Amino acid sequence: MAITVVGSVAYDSIETPAGKRERCLGGAATHFSLAASFFTGVRVIAVVGEDFGPRQEAVFAKRNVDTRGIERAAGKSFFWSGSYMENLNEAKTHQTDLNVFAGFDPKIPAEYADSQFLFLANIDPVLQRRVREAMPGVKLVAGDTMNYWIHDHKPALLEVLKGLDILLINDTEARMLAGENNLVCAARIIQAMGPQTLVIKHGEYGASLYHKVDGRESFFKVPGLPLDEVVDPTGAGDSFAGGFFGYLASQKEQTPEVFRTAMFYGSVMGSLAVERFGTERIANLEAAEIEARFKIFRELTHIG
Amino acid sequence: MAITVVGSVAYDSIETPAGKRERCLGGAATHFSLAASFFTGVRVIAVVGEDFGPRQEAVFAKRNVDTRGIERAAGKSFFWSGSYMENLNEAKTHQTDLNVFAGFDPKIPAEYADSQFLFLANIDPVLQRRVREAMPGVKLVAGDTMNYWIHDHKPALLEVLKGLDILLINDTEARMLAGENNLVCAARIIQAMGPQTLVIKHGEYGASLYHKVDGRESFFKVPGLPLDEVVDPTGAGDSFAGGFFGYLASQKEQTPEVFRTAMFYGSVMGSLAVERFGTERIANLEAAEIEARFKIFRELTHIG
Repeated sequence: MAITVVGSVAYDSIETPAGKRERCLGGAATHFSLAASFFTGVRVIAVVGEDFGPRQEAVFAKRNVDTRGIERAAGKSFFWSGSYMENLNEAKTHQTDLNVFAGFDPKIPAEYADSQFLFLANIDPVLQRRVREAMPGVKLVAGDTMNYWIHDHKPALLEVLKGLDILLINDTEARMLAGENNLVCAARIIQAMGPQTLVIKHGEYGASLYHKVDGRESFFKVPGLPLDEVVDPTGAGDSFAGGFFGYLASQKEQTPEVFRTAMFYGSVMGSLAVERFGTERIANLEAAEIEARFKIFRELTHIG
Repeated sequence: MAITVVGSVAYDSIETPAGKRERCLGGAATHFSLAASFFTGVRVIAVVGEDFGPRQEAVFAKRNVDTRGIERAAGKSFFWSGSYMENLNEAKTHQTDLNVFAGFDPKIPAEYADSQFLFLANIDPVLQRRVREAMPGVKLVAGDTMNYWIHDHKPALLEVLKGLDILLINDTEARMLAGENNLVCAARIIQAMGPQTLVIKHGEYGASLYHKVDGRESFFKVPGLPLDEVVDPTGAGDSFAGGFFGYLASQKEQTPEVFRTAMFYGSVMGSLAVERFGTERIANLEAAEIEARFKIFRELTHIG
């Protein structure tokens, strides 16, 4: 079943110990939709400027991502530049130019209306809520956020959380949102805010699923892949979300086993994404590489 | 097959957010041998003072741990006091009194000579090496160390590493020992120092196994158990080592699958140990509790 995703389509300038790239295609909705496209149909809602041309369009087209919801506005696209020279787990932001994103007013094309799955990528919670309310009939809603919205826009974010089934968040953000250091207790506090399922990401240590099975608390963990080089962490979390939610949406029923498998596909896509700069790895991936990586995760975690 | 372990038998005064205990039985060899005793026979080499009495002796006796190698010396036993008030992952040491341990000269009882498995708990590498050399016929040798020995006694430690099959170490120590931040690269550097198998512990994030299967690099990961309360982390690493090495020693062959299962049993014993102060939990454990916890780890990590 098709996913509609709302979020940023942007240009990123990135420097890591492995090198640098100027103005490569990025943005949460881009990374999410490319990763999810290996599992199901994906429809994007975003805004870009006049600098978004046929070369960028072709990246989405190659993966059959529906871009009819990407609005073209006068001006420049969202631009971010950052580096990971000291710590691959945390970007140091050098510049953020919202550009056309500053006036973003998400419009949902009529063709997207039958989407059963909605992903609210990390944008202003006011916009997340607007899209959520415009698509009341969806079956499953997942969302992402970041420390800035938790810290400075908490009331708006709390409204969004009420409408989410699944929240994806990292450990620092989960602790900040819950005001609680123990992650099991933090997860319970966040579940009481709305989302019954939490995916907490631990950077190089993998990710945890906190949810309920038959009314009882249930946990599932996927480790980080041991990597001897991380070329570019940008978009790893969005690629994880794309693999996770894409797999969920591809399955008829979202059983506990489907959720566990989705955690693996999330980790597969996140671990592949960091092997090249920007979208280079996922945009050019073969389906067989996904299955090969899935097998590696299985061997990394399963006894027999 | 029986394990001989050399290390500290001590008294600990511990404060954590869950409370405090004065002079409870502790020490690496104590925690290790109690945990390992659920899997195989264990023989301890240590030194204690005149304050080590029948009550402490009874803790070992209940678990059938062979204490003939625990020497009684004039004076007081090793004493440590510390707290974990701000960070459950790292103890703040208030006091360390080596006492009789300062003059420890490990003697191996004749009855221990046929041990096939040797565990060198975290003590002065000069003593670790002496015990290793006195037991040249053992089949498998594992050892532990800590930042102090890595930083201040590196040449002696490097000699010990040459005689180890398995090194258990935490991430910070692994990075310090290898002089390398990426853990996969750090593991390779440490493997070149001697131990072909590394168990790297990640605190609440679990542990990783770095070894070789059919001459190829192989990895295995066990997550940390989601715990909503940690009563006392003291001895968690030694209990992990006891479960891990105890299970290995209990099996006829140490196949890759046995190593993976051993990582689970290590995590089982470590996660149980932190539920009470000192040795309280492991000393009073039932075998069925181990299997129940093993099942929880399996559900936490296995898809189907």
